[in-house]
Amino acid sequence: MPDNVARKLIAAHLESGEMTAGEEIALRVDQTLTQDATGTLVMQELEALGLDRARTQVSVQYVDHNLLQTDEKNAEDHEYLRTACAHFGIWYSKPGNGVSHPTHMQRFGIPGKTMVGSDSHTPAAGALGMLAIGVGGLEVALAIAGHPLQIRMPEIWGIRLENELPEWCSAKDVILEMLRRHDVKGGVNRIIEYHGPGLAGLTAMDRHVIANMGAELGATTTVFPSDDAVRDFLRAEDREDDWVELVADDGAAYDIEDTIDLATIEPLIAKPSSPGNVVPVREVAGEEISQVVIGSSANPGLRDFAIAAAMVDGRQTRPEVSFDVNPTSREILTDLTTMGATSQLVIGGARIHQAGCMGCIGMGQAPATGRNSLRTMPRNFPGRSGTKEDSVWLCSPETATASALTGVITDPRDWAADVAMAYPHLNLPTHHAVNTAMLVAPPPADEAARIDPVKGPNISTLPELDELPDELTAPVLLKVGDNISTDEISPAGARALPFRSNIPKLAMFSFTQIDESYPSRAHDAGEPGHIVVGGENYGQGSSREHAAIAPRYLGLRVVIAKSYARIHWQNLANFGVLALEFDQPADYDGIDQGDLLRFEDLRELLAAKDALVVPNATKGTEFTVRHRLSPRQVADVLAGGLIPRLARERQ
Amino acid sequence: MPDNVARKLIAAHLESGEMTAGEEIALRVDQTLTQDATGTLVMQELEALGLDRARTQVSVQYVDHNLLQTDEKNAEDHEYLRTACAHFGIWYSKPGNGVSHPTHMQRFGIPGKTMVGSDSHTPAAGALGMLAIGVGGLEVALAIAGHPLQIRMPEIWGIRLENELPEWCSAKDVILEMLRRHDVKGGVNRIIEYHGPGLAGLTAMDRHVIANMGAELGATTTVFPSDDAVRDFLRAEDREDDWVELVADDGAAYDIEDTIDLATIEPLIAKPSSPGNVVPVREVAGEEISQVVIGSSANPGLRDFAIAAAMVDGRQTRPEVSFDVNPTSREILTDLTTMGATSQLVIGGARIHQAGCMGCIGMGQAPATGRNSLRTMPRNFPGRSGTKEDSVWLCSPETATASALTGVITDPRDWAADVAMAYPHLNLPTHHAVNTAMLVAPPPADEAARIDPVKGPNISTLPELDELPDELTAPVLLKVGDNISTDEISPAGARALPFRSNIPKLAMFSFTQIDESYPSRAHDAGEPGHIVVGGENYGQGSSREHAAIAPRYLGLRVVIAKSYARIHWQNLANFGVLALEFDQPADYDGIDQGDLLRFEDLRELLAAKDALVVPNATKGTEFTVRHRLSPRQVADVLAGGLIPRLARERQ
Repeated sequence: MPDNVARKLIAAHLESGEMTAGEEIALRVDQTLTQDATGTLVMQELEALGLDRARTQVSVQYVDHNLLQTDEKNAEDHEYLRTACAHFGIWYSKPGNGVSHPTHMQRFGIPGKTMVGSDSHTPAAGALGMLAIGVGGLEVALAIAGHPLQIRMPEIWGIRLENELPEWCSAKDVILEMLRRHDVKGGVNRIIEYHGPGLAGLTAMDRHVIANMGAELGATTTVFPSDDAVRDFLRAEDREDDWVELVADDGAAYDIEDTIDLATIEPLIAKPSSPGNVVPVREVAGEEISQVVIGSSANPGLRDFAIAAAMVDGRQTRPEVSFDVNPTSREILTDLTTMGATSQLVIGGARIHQAGCMGCIGMGQAPATGRNSLRTMPRNFPGRSGTKEDSVWLCSPETATASALTGVITDPRDWAADVAMAYPHLNLPTHHAVNTAMLVAPPPADEAARIDPVKGPNISTLPELDELPDELTAPVLLKVGDNISTDEISPAGARALPFRSNIPKLAMFSFTQIDESYPSRAHDAGEPGHIVVGGENYGQGSSREHAAIAPRYLGLRVVIAKSYARIHWQNLANFGVLALEFDQPADYDGIDQGDLLRFEDLRELLAAKDALVVPNATKGTEFTVRHRLSPRQVADVLAGGLIPRLARERQ
Repeated sequence: MPDNVARKLIAAHLESGEMTAGEEIALRVDQTLTQDATGTLVMQELEALGLDRARTQVSVQYVDHNLLQTDEKNAEDHEYLRTACAHFGIWYSKPGNGVSHPTHMQRFGIPGKTMVGSDSHTPAAGALGMLAIGVGGLEVALAIAGHPLQIRMPEIWGIRLENELPEWCSAKDVILEMLRRHDVKGGVNRIIEYHGPGLAGLTAMDRHVIANMGAELGATTTVFPSDDAVRDFLRAEDREDDWVELVADDGAAYDIEDTIDLATIEPLIAKPSSPGNVVPVREVAGEEISQVVIGSSANPGLRDFAIAAAMVDGRQTRPEVSFDVNPTSREILTDLTTMGATSQLVIGGARIHQAGCMGCIGMGQAPATGRNSLRTMPRNFPGRSGTKEDSVWLCSPETATASALTGVITDPRDWAADVAMAYPHLNLPTHHAVNTAMLVAPPPADEAARIDPVKGPNISTLPELDELPDELTAPVLLKVGDNISTDEISPAGARALPFRSNIPKLAMFSFTQIDESYPSRAHDAGEPGHIVVGGENYGQGSSREHAAIAPRYLGLRVVIAKSYARIHWQNLANFGVLALEFDQPADYDGIDQGDLLRFEDLRELLAAKDALVVPNATKGTEFTVRHRLSPRQVADVLAGGLIPRLARERQ
């Protein structure tokens, strides 16, 4: 039977389970990716697991988030990661080398391989024909230790691309069109697979843009075929030998089928404060702006910067606009420099920042309160920019640059007509400035064993978590709405990120974007813990497991939501928090903050069936909840988390 | 009578007073310089003074300090400065345009002019034959409003330079030699004037290095002649028309005379944690390092980066060393890029940061606790890097780069011998990448009057300060040692700097580097205020008037020290804090923190004479103090500061 790329990748790595949507399957993991904001915890988890040396084909630790170093903590994290990598046999990518996703694609990505990464944008590697899935750090740690990845088999969503993109439109507009159509939950429990004749016009880095922001649809991952565009990319990276062809068979079918006619795409923009708020740029044209940021893993390619450079060449960005450029890697900065684009950008008014994520995860570049900031980034959740009352828009480099030149939101087609600029032909190099010197290879095993990870004063060990009690009466300490992101549960940004290696301190930032009193109220509530109630798509966004472990540290035992984002749901189980769903979503309305809820016979009920009746002791009512946990996950939750469960099994 | 350059500059701008060392003189001010960390307060002072439009020939506001934008406050400061500049008729240099001192030299510096700047490194403009003095923000505000600068006539210290620097030594080693000889108080109440045949080998930017760090000697300022080297520099900047010759007359004498034989200079380094701890690099060679930073106004020139690029070309900095490069201006970044040096640095492992001060004032780049960081910066006061227990060394780009390549502190001569590298001939452009587009010119007066400065939520107005009481019994709330810097009184860095426009909030950081309890104890002490006791050279370093106004806001009324750094002493008077000196330095030892001291008849005594007897009510002892305040300054202190005094005079 003709098969699609996603199923071929899964079949080739299937260790157990049935490839039927909804069934739990186990996949062999070839590669892992960690970044520094989640990686320090992964290293602590490897310590807790007692691992000697990585079992994967390739594991790479990138440093791209915590680059500001406003005090000693970032530098101490870097030192810890560098030495822990040497100890565990993991590659270490130094600060300044680049953002994990494009850098991994340049140096390590191989068509046909599987990868897990402790970053929700890990699916970007799907651009090369990989099956790359963002997961919690603990699952990355398990993969590094040689365990397969356990997930539920997703549906495969085929998107047929037809025709070619018009001038002044680019890959970002394609993924924004997907978000316009399907919003931030449209991809939940699905793998998106792009196919069709429209692929011919998209380079590997264009595909990276689309695969990367598949995360914003809630998709499990995105895959593209490995075709000539992938071969061209790997050749430019001196890695043509790593290329293998991987394409869908003729006549391959998909669980869900959809089509995008690229010729009908127009410049799009996501309004504040959700990647799903997509409208045509012309609909909001004329709004004054104060900042434009070009960069991030959601527009990482040379062409994304080169088009901006071509547009500003001989022109000046507006005096009232800060025009920030974040090169995604030193390779791309080198190529931009060689081709003259760096100079064009600087002369045009750009602030060139160090290669890294920067403002994308709120590490600097925070805009003024209420002022419009246009960014070629993947997310604009409230406050993620570092500014509490921010106004962040997501768009293509073309739209961002045209707007920087006019001072108002501007459709690049209208700008080009105004200045009589023809769509530029970008003369991009066919061979990239390959340089591996900031990638530190792990030493041989005997040498590695003698290297002790260096822990600065701010680096803790994982907190020990106790079992879920069998009976529990606890208050609803917080009730939140729909689409609460992990940014709102455990914020990124320059204040909180330096504490990512120190759960007790990081915990004090939990939920403070929503309710500043949560950490102190959680502390006051004390034993036996408390409950959080959420709406739809609870825990969307970043993969950070800190959003599970930090509230757990403060006493969170149960979450009840209408639905969950996949990674966060798994992270809750990994750290012993019971994630339940309302049987009747309307019951959400019957609960108030402060209500005391009662759970009984949890061990028996969770194992036996998926429905529980929960009495609301405050209201004198009751409602039914369900769980979707596998028996393995139930065991994890009851044990207080995956690490305590594994420790118990080792005894 | 043959005259030196410094006296010629003073004579040409003398509005009143005698040019006799120690006498108060008033100087006409042609230009002003402000940076953002001090400039927001200057704008608030201009508002308090009721100014309509700047009276100077040129006033320029730079944004180079608060560039990280970890939350909305920085961006809101930038917006306030941009609109306030337009309102008051001041040039505005956008974030990313560059560090104030080299950028001012490139675009605005003119031989023979006077300048005051609210930045202690303002004397860097002395490289062009200007008389440029760092002062508190309030004195800059007065200069912008057309008032002359009041200072005591300094002594002129002639330094005759002979011969040429050896290979692998550069301007930084010259100023480090000065600091080795004279330490951080050696230049107090002096203007340093360099002359002699050795000048021929120093470009204008080399001289900038030396003039800039004259501030570390405590000098009032540093001057160089305006000769052919200055003409060459201005020609490269398309400003040859601004050149005028200004040299010492043949046979000109100096109050103090000294000589440096440049041929005897060797690579030097200032050990932690004072710029005066200077030793030969070879004496400390072999110490492991974890960070190297190239940049700052203390090594701002194209050659300072180009030499680093030439050294790393074809080589790699060490994996355990972060190699950070901060271009000083977009002009220099453009030139570096054109000549290929940017690529050499990036390929060699550099993290290229946005143009600005960055780690020099603790805005990022903080090293790990206790790890050695080598920097081509002017200061290494404890904690200034952002890391509480830091270990920062100051050296030339040659020493810094050699060390980045070896991983240990390395004399560049020894490194060059090891790798058999000949001293490189740097082929620097004779015409620079001049680009004024990020300098926003002030609009015409009628348009300016209609522009209201935009104040974000974090921007306050100046607090109102009350008169000094005639009688005062107050506790010594803090007793500190020698050479306390303004960094220790009111810290820079990413945590505190965003509050520079908000004195009530900034005040809570006062003295916390020394004693975290000071702000709360000051609050508890309440009325009528409190006293701080200091040692020698109290208030050295940065010009920030926040170090006066913030503790004053918390109730500081009197400081008693063995001696003061000039700018801080003036800032205390400007904000109504009485600065007294021990008549007998040994009396310092007789006072303990907590002692209650009593002052009586302050109005009569301060006006009548300079000696006061102070009873120590706690100890039952007494001691004598003196003040060096002019009658004008006494009036300021009694009125509660200069602004209340001027306001009263206007009534």
